[in-house]
Amino acid sequence: MTRHYYGFEAFLADTRQLAEQAASFHPEAIVAISRGGVSLGHLLSEYFDLRTLYTLNAIHYDDTRKLDTVEIFNIPDLHTAQRVLVVDEIVDSGESMVAIMAALKARYPAVDFKTAALFQKADACFEADFWVKRPAGWIDFFWEVDLKPESNK
Amino acid sequence: MTRHYYGFEAFLADTRQLAEQAASFHPEAIVAISRGGVSLGHLLSEYFDLRTLYTLNAIHYDDTRKLDTVEIFNIPDLHTAQRVLVVDEIVDSGESMVAIMAALKARYPAVDFKTAALFQKADACFEADFWVKRPAGWIDFFWEVDLKPESNK
Repeated sequence: MTRHYYGFEAFLADTRQLAEQAASFHPEAIVAISRGGVSLGHLLSEYFDLRTLYTLNAIHYDDTRKLDTVEIFNIPDLHTAQRVLVVDEIVDSGESMVAIMAALKARYPAVDFKTAALFQKADACFEADFWVKRPAGWIDFFWEVDLKPESNK
Repeated sequence: MTRHYYGFEAFLADTRQLAEQAASFHPEAIVAISRGGVSLGHLLSEYFDLRTLYTLNAIHYDDTRKLDTVEIFNIPDLHTAQRVLVVDEIVDSGESMVAIMAALKARYPAVDFKTAALFQKADACFEADFWVKRPAGWIDFFWEVDLKPESNK
């Protein structure tokens, strides 16, 4: 699979596009999926001037013997928000986002959730409400590679 | 007060220095203070190869009529971590960090917490265990200004 480096300047330009798309939703809070969606969530929270930047943790366990499982924890308190934007850097298989949105809607049935991602795979089982690009191969996001010591690469 | 723009390249260089300092602590989880510490926490979690990137929310209410108050919420589950690094972009007055660390230690008395910040004010009432620079005037962090629409500036 081809690998593409995704640097800060591309991230900034795409995040601006994503923010302009999501502006019509008028989000009152942002839930960024940790880890991949966290820098994106931070910049979007500044764009929308929202102090209500939250995260949740989702870990996708691939298991070839049975169905994949997604562990979701640290769901934030969303009782004061009507419209919440859930953000991740990429909707890849889509399985994580399906599980996350099910968990959020079960916990907060009165909240209006929408989803935003920089990259949306065409064959994913979930499509974000707002997204910017189709991924072409494997993406090395700057936050994954710019700082990492050689020993962890 | 003089204003300084703090761009992504300076952030990357300083975050690397902070990570190299904090490496001796061998953190098992990172708690980033939302919003300011969130991009920093994301990059540090990648540097240390930790999926355990969490956030908490702290809002510092300045009130001239009485003592300042700091509202702290969405404290993450830290039951599985021994050594936790709490990160924020700046220790300014230090009052938020004092309140945050008191709340974390009260909730998790068995956890070994250390703190890390890019900027540490000399006259703050709290000093981070790891920090990189003294602030000279007001800092416009890139996440606050690079993306923000003109209407919110």
